[in-house]
This record gives sequence, structure tokens and C-alpha cells, in this order.
Amino acid sequence: MSDYATAVHDSARRARQAAGVLATTPRAAKDAALCAMADALVDRTAEVVEANGADVAAGRAAGMSDALVDRLALDPKRVAAMADGLRQVAGLPDPVGEVIRGSVLPNGLELRQIRVPLGVVGIVYEARPNVTADAAGLCLKAGNAVLLRGSSSAAHSNAAIVAVLRDALATAGLPADAVQLVDASSRDSVKELMRARGLVDVLIPRGGADLIRSVVEESTVPVIETGIGNCHVYVDSAADLEMALAILLNAKVQRPSVCNAAESLLVHRAVAAAFLDRALPALRDAGVLVHGDPDVVAAGVHCGVTVQPATGADYAAEYLSLDLSAAVVDTLDAAVAHVARYGSGHTEAIITGSLATAREFTARVDAAAVMVNASTRFTDGEQFGFGAEIGISTQKLHARGPMGLPELTSTKYVVTGTGQVRG
Amino acid sequence: MSDYATAVHDSARRARQAAGVLATTPRAAKDAALCAMADALVDRTAEVVEANGADVAAGRAAGMSDALVDRLALDPKRVAAMADGLRQVAGLPDPVGEVIRGSVLPNGLELRQIRVPLGVVGIVYEARPNVTADAAGLCLKAGNAVLLRGSSSAAHSNAAIVAVLRDALATAGLPADAVQLVDASSRDSVKELMRARGLVDVLIPRGGADLIRSVVEESTVPVIETGIGNCHVYVDSAADLEMALAILLNAKVQRPSVCNAAESLLVHRAVAAAFLDRALPALRDAGVLVHGDPDVVAAGVHCGVTVQPATGADYAAEYLSLDLSAAVVDTLDAAVAHVARYGSGHTEAIITGSLATAREFTARVDAAAVMVNASTRFTDGEQFGFGAEIGISTQKLHARGPMGLPELTSTKYVVTGTGQVRG
Repeated sequence: MSDYATAVHDSARRARQAAGVLATTPRAAKDAALCAMADALVDRTAEVVEANGADVAAGRAAGMSDALVDRLALDPKRVAAMADGLRQVAGLPDPVGEVIRGSVLPNGLELRQIRVPLGVVGIVYEARPNVTADAAGLCLKAGNAVLLRGSSSAAHSNAAIVAVLRDALATAGLPADAVQLVDASSRDSVKELMRARGLVDVLIPRGGADLIRSVVEESTVPVIETGIGNCHVYVDSAADLEMALAILLNAKVQRPSVCNAAESLLVHRAVAAAFLDRALPALRDAGVLVHGDPDVVAAGVHCGVTVQPATGADYAAEYLSLDLSAAVVDTLDAAVAHVARYGSGHTEAIITGSLATAREFTARVDAAAVMVNASTRFTDGEQFGFGAEIGISTQKLHARGPMGLPELTSTKYVVTGTGQVRG
Repeated sequence: MSDYATAVHDSARRARQAAGVLATTPRAAKDAALCAMADALVDRTAEVVEANGADVAAGRAAGMSDALVDRLALDPKRVAAMADGLRQVAGLPDPVGEVIRGSVLPNGLELRQIRVPLGVVGIVYEARPNVTADAAGLCLKAGNAVLLRGSSSAAHSNAAIVAVLRDALATAGLPADAVQLVDASSRDSVKELMRARGLVDVLIPRGGADLIRSVVEESTVPVIETGIGNCHVYVDSAADLEMALAILLNAKVQRPSVCNAAESLLVHRAVAAAFLDRALPALRDAGVLVHGDPDVVAAGVHCGVTVQPATGADYAAEYLSLDLSAAVVDTLDAAVAHVARYGSGHTEAIITGSLATAREFTARVDAAAVMVNASTRFTDGEQFGFGAEIGISTQKLHARGPMGLPELTSTKYVVTGTGQVRG
């Protein structure tokens, strides 16, 4: 075994031990630990910010972009926000022990299906060090031990944060090994996590498309796929065009770098001319470059806005930038077919005043979330009222859409009898 | 691409088309098709039994054991039972469209989480041809298209059954491609199913440990692991020993070849002598060979029953036969540790009159089902009142324990607004 294999397996075994303790730790003890972790982060802010400074300096020296440096950088305010996040998780209901269904069987057996922790959760993520505290807090609340494999560019920051959290856990009387950092100096540690079947119960990759794809394809540990969003806004023939424009602009422009931002516009031919005549200038004014089919290019000529001719790659792209692909469709069928071909199963929106069309679109579009007359940007655990999220699943098994605490659990049937045997 | 790859991909694409239709097919149409499939099986019994005769003859010629021939063989009564199974599925509630949660968000958005079909389900299974009809019926009811990859030893039977089911689907106005048989003449077709990520939404292997292990380890398509059961019966110091004996005998002997049969006995030292003195002769009289630790061997000497010395392999074995491993433990902790080390996460039973001990055992044992004072044999979709089951999941993601119709679905968030945008 390589050193990475030994290290990951040792960590996973210690995590499994810790998970055994957490599985029967009552809510009050978990919440007290979360608050202790929050207090410790605030108390030791200087230590965390200093470690982060080393990452930021190394990043700048290596030519990291300003945008990435901004994601990486911590100051006392951001450390306080991490602490607040932990306190917020402490305030959420405990999913463990929730009875999901229960009945008395004809033979008198009492059947209950109960939420239980998953066990050992591995999170593989990129630059932002606040994920370290967020993921640790959510996993702890759901009774799981967590193996955190962050980015090497945030290694000093993550080490400092995890040291603080582990100290607080131990002080609160819970096993420090419930939160462990995995060596990020080589991709081999990710490989070992992906092959630790039986030691790690689930891997959740958070980050760019390449990271997620490689984990999904190579892991023998069960994976929850997150966060690729090629989200469409479909403006139906029965749309309120003013509402459609407001939603399109919000979905594209309000925060273009996130997975629930819109990447593609589809417009029904019946309203295409009227809508594009208003939308193309508004998008241009908001700094958006439209990549359109010939109809959209022609509409651009009509209203004096430059539209790039779109290729198939444009329709498939998750731009995460101020770019938008656009096409005119003849029917709802064509819109649904376009979404089926190019969509990533994240969030699809329709703008329509027709109940029948809304019903058909929501039934036929296969995605984690379908919005009717609302921005794609609402697909989010906080917005959905879940209190916090560990990511947005774009797969169909286990969890689909924003994942809160219940999605970090499994279930167990408990059957209580008085000596029943099967006839 | 190999011929197998082309064939599997073509089937999967046709299945995806069919799944698109099924996703919005109302319950009445699905139930009518299920009844038509049942009627057609009965009407064409002769055809199915004749095709099965070819498989049985080939099996006998190849030296298949009598037990396997019995699993493979169909007669008019067994065909009628398959038809009854389809009618029973028609009578179950439709999981599709069920609203799992719903609320109105502070900004007025109406949020609903709704059950939707998974899409295309692949089932890889072994000899018994009744699985062909059962799996097709359950998948259809849950709105999924199914790719059935049975055993080559049942190829003629499966082809005849699937031909009947497809004809009935078409006559009922549903797409025949909702039920397709995958070529079973080579293991390459299983390999192609395992690599059809994006075309197949989930693979469910049903069968022996080797089949399940290879699918779990090699598949890039998400897998639901089923059915390995190394189930324990733990007789606590506070057990009613008569009840314990009845449950142990039922769990071991009533049907030893199935995954929820008991494979291992643990006895608390305080009651070991009294219990084993009665249990060992009773097990011997029922034809059970016990593989025990030195304490159990000594107890055997005491009551004149031959006990084989057990090895670690015995404690890990899923015998599926009239063999039972057995050990004496000093504490509940030791019992829990033994189960954690050797159990397969299927079903674990405790016999105890102590509420505190029952509570601790059910909380600490990590398994799909935990029985208190009841036989392990009850872990079953029918017994749990689910009406039918597609298998018993021993994994923690998506579904754990007996899987009925809801476990063959995913979910979708539908969010309805009046023009809301994110601030």
C-alpha cells in the first residue's frame, strides 16, 4: 500500500470509530459541540487568518487570479460568518431518529423506519475554506464522521480550521476524529478515498465539472453527484413578457458564477420577435453576450444588438459567466426536447400564464427542480427553507436537488415483536 | 464499439424514449397494461412453458443440479402465479406524483417535492424466470422502462415471457420498449450495462454474492446493492429462552437458502449453558450443523451434540444452507462488535426482555433491519406490507432494506411562482 492509502485507510478507520459514538450521541451534545466549535473559531481567529495568509501569499506567487484569491481569502468577518453557520446548524432539527414510517403489521410486529447517520462521509472540494467548517458542521449534526479533502491551495487554512474544530470537539467530550483533514498534497489521496469502499460510506464531490466527473466515473465508493448546472429559461407563447425578462435577467446576471444561474434561453416563436426585441438590448446593457441560433441572430440585427452564432457546444456549455445561449423553438415539444438533449438535470424554468403548459412542462422535464414563473436562482437549500445545504444533487438516487440534513442520513427498519416467527 | 455495446446502447435509447412516455402515463393506463400483461401470460401459457422446456432440457444436459432445475422450471401453475403477481402490482398505489413535502416559502413561492420515475432501470439477475415478469411489472408501475439481463440458462423462457409482455403493452397502447430483454449469451452485455452511464439510471443486481460484488465494483452506472445476508440472532442474558429457541430455529431452518435466514448465533455467557443445552440438540434434530467457538464446542460435548470448531471464515460466511456459526459473548458490547465485524448489514436480531438492552442494540447495530424478539425472516417487502419487492438493499444510499415501488422512484422539486426573482 502507498503512504496515501495507509493514511486514508487509517483516517477512515478512526472516522468509523468516531461515527459509532456519534450515532448514539443525543442532539443536545451535538449542538453543544457545534456551539463550542463556533466559539473556538472566533476565539482563534488570528490563528486561522494567519494560516490563510500563507495560502493567499502562495496563491498570488503562483499567479492565482484575483477572483480565486477572493474565494480563498479569510478575514475576521469571514471567520465569524463560518462560526455563525455552525450556530445555525445547531439550531436545525436533528434528523437522526426521525420516524419516517411506522405501522403495526397484521401479526402484531411493530415496524418503524428510522433515520440513522450514513456513517463516514468524504467531501472532496475546491478552494473555498469556509466549506471546511460548513461540511464539518452539517456532517456532525447528522451524526456522521467526515473526511475533508480540500484543495492544496487552501491547505494551511484548512489545517488551521480543522485543528480548531477538533480541539473544540474534544473539549466538548466528542471524538475529535469525527472531523479529519485528508492530505491534499497529491491527487493520490482522492484516489484512495474513491477506492475506500467499506471504509467510506459516501463521497460528495463539490467543485468544478472536471472534479465531479472524475469522482463519479472512478469511485467505487457510492457518490452523490453535485452541482453541474446548464439551466434553461423557456419563455412560452403564453408568457407575461415583462415577467419573463425580469426572471431571465435575474437568472443570468444576479450571480453568473453559480450552478443555478441560467445558461440558455429558449423562446417560443409566437413571442420571439416581441420578446427578443426587448430582451437582447437589456441583456447587452447587463453585459451579457448572447450566442444565438439564426433566428436570434436575425432578431439581434433587427434591434441592433450583436449576437454570436451559436454552436452545439454553446447549447451544452455551463458558462458560469456573462454568456447565454439562445434559440427560438416552434413548440413546447421542441423546448422539452432541447432541454432533454442539453440540460444537466439541475434547474429548468418556464415562464407561462397557461396552466396546461405549466403542467406539461413540469411533468415532462427531467430535472432536480422545475420553476414556473420564478428564477432558476431559487434552487438552493437556504432558499428552500432547509437551513443549510451540503450541495445540490443532480443525480436521481438518494437525493435530488438541494441537500440538507435529512439527505445526509440513511434509514434503518426497527421491528419489535413478542416472539413472532414466520409460518 | 462491440456488437454488445451497440445492442445495449440501442436498447437503452429506446428504453429512454419509452420512459419519457411512461413518466406522464396516468395510473389507470399503467394498471390496465399490467392486467393485460397478466391475461396474456395466462393465454399464452403453452408458449412460455414450451420455451422453458428447452431451457430445462439444456440445463439437465449440462448437469444442472435438481435444486437449480427446480428454480428454473415453469408449469402452468407457476405462470399463473406470475400473472397474479402482475395483477397484485396493478392494485398497489401509484408512487408517481406523490407529494413528499410541500410548503409556501416566505416570498410566496409554492414548493413541492414530488415522486417521479427513475427513468431506465437495469436488472441483472440469475436463474428464476419469474423475476422477469415481477421486475417488469414493478418497473412499469413506477413509470420506469426496464432492461432485463437474465441468465443465459433461462434465455428461452425469458425471451418468451418478454415477447408476451411486450405484445400486451403494445395492445394496451403503451410502448413495448418499456420492457426489453438484453442478450444473455455473453458477460459482455452486463459489462456494457455497467458502463452505460447517462443511458441507464440505475442497475439493480439480484442474485449471488459474486454477481453483486462484480456489479458494485465495476459499474459506473449507479447501483443498488442487494441481498447478501449474514444475519445474526443474539440471545441476550435477559432473553426468554423458549422464545429465543423458537426464533432461532425459524430464522435458520424455515428457508435456509434466502438472504434473511440466520447464519450466526451469539449467546450471552450468563445464559449460554442453559440455552445451548436445549438449542444444540434442537438444531441437530432440525438437520443443522453448528460451527462453534470453544465454548460452544464444550457445550456440545456436555449435551452430546457434535459441534464443528469455527474459523473466522465461518463467522463471515453466508452459508445459505443448514449450517450455523455460533459464539458465546461476555457482553452486549462484544455482541455488537461481532456483528459490526462480520455482519453484512442486512438483518440482525436480538432476543431480550430488557428494554434498555433492546434500545441499545437497535441503536448501535448498523443494519438495514434490526429485529427485537422476532425472526430475521420477516425482512421482506411482502411481510413489511409493501405489497411486492424488487429486492432487499443492503447499502445505505437511496434505499435500505426491502424495496417496494417508492424505492423505484426519484423526486423532483416543482416550484411555482408569480414572477419571483432573487434579491
